[in-house]
Amino acid sequence: MKYLTNDKLLIVGAGGMIGSNLVQSALMLGLTPNICLYDIYEPGVHGVYDEMEQCAVPGANLSYYAPAVEDMNDPEKVAEAAKKAFTGAKYIISSGGAPRKAGMTREDLLKGNCKIAADFGENIKKYCPDVEHVVVIFNPADVTALTALIHSGLKPNQLTSLAALDSTRLQQALAHEFGVQQDKVTGAHTYGGHGEQMAVFASQVKVDGKPLSEFNISEERWAQIKHDTIQGGSNIIKLRGRSSFQSPAYQAVKMIEGAMGGTPFTWPAGCYVNCDTCGYKNVMMA
Amino acid sequence: MKYLTNDKLLIVGAGGMIGSNLVQSALMLGLTPNICLYDIYEPGVHGVYDEMEQCAVPGANLSYYAPAVEDMNDPEKVAEAAKKAFTGAKYIISSGGAPRKAGMTREDLLKGNCKIAADFGENIKKYCPDVEHVVVIFNPADVTALTALIHSGLKPNQLTSLAALDSTRLQQALAHEFGVQQDKVTGAHTYGGHGEQMAVFASQVKVDGKPLSEFNISEERWAQIKHDTIQGGSNIIKLRGRSSFQSPAYQAVKMIEGAMGGTPFTWPAGCYVNCDTCGYKNVMMA
Repeated sequence: MKYLTNDKLLIVGAGGMIGSNLVQSALMLGLTPNICLYDIYEPGVHGVYDEMEQCAVPGANLSYYAPAVEDMNDPEKVAEAAKKAFTGAKYIISSGGAPRKAGMTREDLLKGNCKIAADFGENIKKYCPDVEHVVVIFNPADVTALTALIHSGLKPNQLTSLAALDSTRLQQALAHEFGVQQDKVTGAHTYGGHGEQMAVFASQVKVDGKPLSEFNISEERWAQIKHDTIQGGSNIIKLRGRSSFQSPAYQAVKMIEGAMGGTPFTWPAGCYVNCDTCGYKNVMMA
Repeated sequence: MKYLTNDKLLIVGAGGMIGSNLVQSALMLGLTPNICLYDIYEPGVHGVYDEMEQCAVPGANLSYYAPAVEDMNDPEKVAEAAKKAFTGAKYIISSGGAPRKAGMTREDLLKGNCKIAADFGENIKKYCPDVEHVVVIFNPADVTALTALIHSGLKPNQLTSLAALDSTRLQQALAHEFGVQQDKVTGAHTYGGHGEQMAVFASQVKVDGKPLSEFNISEERWAQIKHDTIQGGSNIIKLRGRSSFQSPAYQAVKMIEGAMGGTPFTWPAGCYVNCDTCGYKNVMMA
């Protein structure tokens, strides 16, 4: 088994559905054998660690850290586990946010996850200021990533957030529209926010080498494709009964692969923008 | 993206936790771009197909088949979907069994999954008799694999069942015992059934090149290691609140990779045994 690097990759939130897939994907794609799993909930991350070891990937050198269950709410014990996990990390992916629970408003979620993002940034500053690159993927990722960036003290280009899935959904919808293999659709990029504020760019799209504009796609069909793109995430919830976890994990690992000097990552990524002339100040956006 | 082959790989039960991981693992490990997803439950497999397309793996050429939800219990409609899915398949992995539900006895499970295994074998015989290799991983895999083999008409060496995880659990336990990187433990193999009938072989084990027998491991420690190995699966359920799904999927894909002419698979696999002198007649075992 050949790996891209031996540097330490830290997966934060490794006990969750996305986190456990991040660990497996990073191993299978041969990023690094040195992967550290961190989570606040010991049994979950312990179980993922065991399963990953039971994959018996040649060369793998895994570790995991979490406070004992009875110490989950003891800040000192949590800090102790975090110190061990973060120290020496050169690359980090964090899916370690709390999910939205029944009865929670969007604001409750935002508040809770911003606190987690701030702590995450502080841990980077304290324990691994020499980290090369960090990818943040817990929701709302534009806000949590910005919060983590501010608290981490890293340079803006060292921390990005996941923003690729709207674009791959656009690529998928166009491939279905024209009945071509998906990677024959190129230049399918969306920018800005999720949902209604999403900017779906058609001008760069080519289908099998031919510009989209030459296909004379009807306004109705284009509206439908945009709709399918925007609804892509909620459609997965409807079909699978749970949020996407395989595609975000895969894309986040591909982002880190690019940062490690492997295959360049060519889908959009969220990054810090501060631009007076274009009207975006201090935001994280694709 | 380079693939091992362009042959069609069929994943049966692709809507489930193991099935969806099988699809992702086969893509990430570069087995083949041509993967067909089949399941009896349309929304689940549709959602997995969408997520996999949204990974936008270069070269991937995915398809899925399932009867419409309202036709799930119509044998003709199910057969129609199965025909499309199985036709032309050169490799198959099936995790398409029913899980054990509350109130079901082991016998209920066995009966239901044997029926599924028989239908699975019939589909192979009818629609893809030229299949190269089939891996069966739904429980109880020794019985379902034997049933599928009989109904498929394949040669015994064309159908195997997953049996590697007990061995990788033994390797893991020994690596922890001696504090070495896991792949420094070689020759850790278990045979026979799961559970108490499992035969844990120590004679071939080496730790960092040195035979296990030279380590003077105490009987107590050896008993503990055997216990941890045997309890490995139920321990995952305790920790994660669900059965293993990442490690069985990974190992099953590695079995098919070996059958495709890629990295040879060197862990135990369940295969048909019919041997008067050794006392095993018409069984599937590792």
